[in-house]
Amino acid sequence: MQDKHMLMIPGPTPVPERVLLAMAKHPIGHRSGDFSQVIAEITADLKWLHQTTSDVLMLTVSGTGAMEAGIVNFLSPGDRVLVGNNGKFGERWVLVSRAFGLDVEEITAEWGKPLDPEAFREKLEADSQKTIKAVIITHSETSTGILNDLETINQYVKNHGEALIIVDAVTSLGAFNVPIDDWGLDVVASGSQKGYMIPPGLGFVAVSQKAWKAYETAKIPKFYLDLKAYKKATDKNSSPFTPPVNLMYGLQAALKMMKEEGLDAIFARHRRLTEATRAGVKALGLPLYAPDEAASTAITAVMPTGVDAEAIRSTMKKQFDIALAGGQDDLKGKIFRIGHLGFVGDRDILTAIAALESTLQTLGYQGATPGSGVAAAAKVLG
Amino acid sequence: MQDKHMLMIPGPTPVPERVLLAMAKHPIGHRSGDFSQVIAEITADLKWLHQTTSDVLMLTVSGTGAMEAGIVNFLSPGDRVLVGNNGKFGERWVLVSRAFGLDVEEITAEWGKPLDPEAFREKLEADSQKTIKAVIITHSETSTGILNDLETINQYVKNHGEALIIVDAVTSLGAFNVPIDDWGLDVVASGSQKGYMIPPGLGFVAVSQKAWKAYETAKIPKFYLDLKAYKKATDKNSSPFTPPVNLMYGLQAALKMMKEEGLDAIFARHRRLTEATRAGVKALGLPLYAPDEAASTAITAVMPTGVDAEAIRSTMKKQFDIALAGGQDDLKGKIFRIGHLGFVGDRDILTAIAALESTLQTLGYQGATPGSGVAAAAKVLG
Repeated sequence: MQDKHMLMIPGPTPVPERVLLAMAKHPIGHRSGDFSQVIAEITADLKWLHQTTSDVLMLTVSGTGAMEAGIVNFLSPGDRVLVGNNGKFGERWVLVSRAFGLDVEEITAEWGKPLDPEAFREKLEADSQKTIKAVIITHSETSTGILNDLETINQYVKNHGEALIIVDAVTSLGAFNVPIDDWGLDVVASGSQKGYMIPPGLGFVAVSQKAWKAYETAKIPKFYLDLKAYKKATDKNSSPFTPPVNLMYGLQAALKMMKEEGLDAIFARHRRLTEATRAGVKALGLPLYAPDEAASTAITAVMPTGVDAEAIRSTMKKQFDIALAGGQDDLKGKIFRIGHLGFVGDRDILTAIAALESTLQTLGYQGATPGSGVAAAAKVLG
Repeated sequence: MQDKHMLMIPGPTPVPERVLLAMAKHPIGHRSGDFSQVIAEITADLKWLHQTTSDVLMLTVSGTGAMEAGIVNFLSPGDRVLVGNNGKFGERWVLVSRAFGLDVEEITAEWGKPLDPEAFREKLEADSQKTIKAVIITHSETSTGILNDLETINQYVKNHGEALIIVDAVTSLGAFNVPIDDWGLDVVASGSQKGYMIPPGLGFVAVSQKAWKAYETAKIPKFYLDLKAYKKATDKNSSPFTPPVNLMYGLQAALKMMKEEGLDAIFARHRRLTEATRAGVKALGLPLYAPDEAASTAITAVMPTGVDAEAIRSTMKKQFDIALAGGQDDLKGKIFRIGHLGFVGDRDILTAIAALESTLQTLGYQGATPGSGVAAAAKVLG
């Protein structure tokens, strides 16, 4: 059966019909007065979503491009940085930082475990010379479904006083409370195909006043990712380079929907979907990969025993046309990941758990009582 | 009247309905087998369009991002480069090259005049030590409507033997014959919102084998724009970072349309539209900004005398809802530009010239015989 696909991966995430149709509008000139109004509206709504009165800049890049912009604008070759690494995207921060000549000290945790804030505290407190220029971490680690304790780590960065906090919020922005101004986060990068409910193609970087001060002395060369050019243009409701007009129509529609729902309701929904998913999976006897206290509200990773993770994904795809994500790198074949980020509602979680339950029966898995997964998920949702 | 807009600017260019509708399809996972097939098809079609058997890589960037990728992957700080500069985008090559520490020698021409190939020949022939690492030029200079003589300049680069030729083909690819393999062009950058007939958001870089050799020793730091990562992924019908899935659906549909029309027919159409536009404008007594022998087939710039350029644009917009581009930088208010690039047919040119004729009458311009513009354009098209 064609066109009956259901996306339950951590990105691209499902896109509302009205966003898709907004994207199908014919483009207009990006230097026109009409489009300036679109930029103005989007910029205001992005600040609302980011809970900041400072700048949120929009780039034609994937999430990795937004992460790179977060590095090259605020640091110089040789700068000492602490980089948290407990998954694929923490590792990416390390690679980006090294590519631009930073002096990287990794603070690692095993994949599937959260970063230990105390490890950051020790390094920061020991740095009486204030040589640490930035602490760089992934908030929601998409590869493992771990939510790192950004709030506590950031508190230690604030106590240090000098270092910037640079955050990959690609799968937490719009799925978890990230109050940028309240917490004093300096650089927060994210991407469109996640909590934003639009297809991939746009990256976002929120920049604090403190980060702009660091910009003035940052020496890594840059042009396309030079955020000052984006700020100057955005302040005039324009863009430094041709922006992806149609994706921005989609973004305009999606942000309107988010404002109608409200931030608190959005965060509560993601929490509820996460709890329902975890309850359903647990009831089916499948081990959750991330512990409850460090569970991402965007994605739930499952490490099945007694049944093959890839067989589950394959049956889910073939029989129910539900796309789940697999594991990356060392976790390939060992875990599967259920995305519940963005345009996802209670019905989607019940559907996914019901299909998972049926899939386990099909695969001859003995560990679950038929009906138990849906019952447990429904209890959370009820 | 709403939604009756007609785009006659050099980008974004008009988008066919079937491309818009393709973009409104729900995204699927970019790591799925189904999407691999989309990438495979697009990649093959891009090679056809670029007339190359080497690599054409696709990035989530605007045209400037593709230009920057063309620099940072193949050169090192301190490298001596000749950069052609006779307009806004030649100037941008200078800015990008300097931002990354290249030793830039500009070869300039007045705006509205083509670059002189002899100036390149002299520099290249004098370089017996082969210190020139690259010649960097804009093929179709969008800001002025000038087509630089890439074929001749490239011939001198070939005679030099060492230097790479790096080309901004943003408004020539798909509008003018750019036979990459036949001419031996090394790096050719372009963007989606031009000859490709899709909205902005995708950049393309074609890379020759000689350029890949230069990549091995190039030292400018890079990560998001590292083309080797794109090549490795593309060779496996994948992408290094999340690609803009929906724009790629659009690209798939647009490339199919281009293949149905055929390269020769596409180039002939752009030539015909250019000649008709120029004939119409000339007959109306308005001075063309670029000379016939160096006229871009993407855009025609007009420098009116006895009537205000901005008044023309404003009336065209208000009465006929036709968007023309204005002048940039020093040319602001002095020229207007008619885009005839991509999804543009004979009817669009007749329409634009007819509206221009009517606009001139409205503005009380005395230099034109009513009907003469349309008659002249029709004669070319007939």
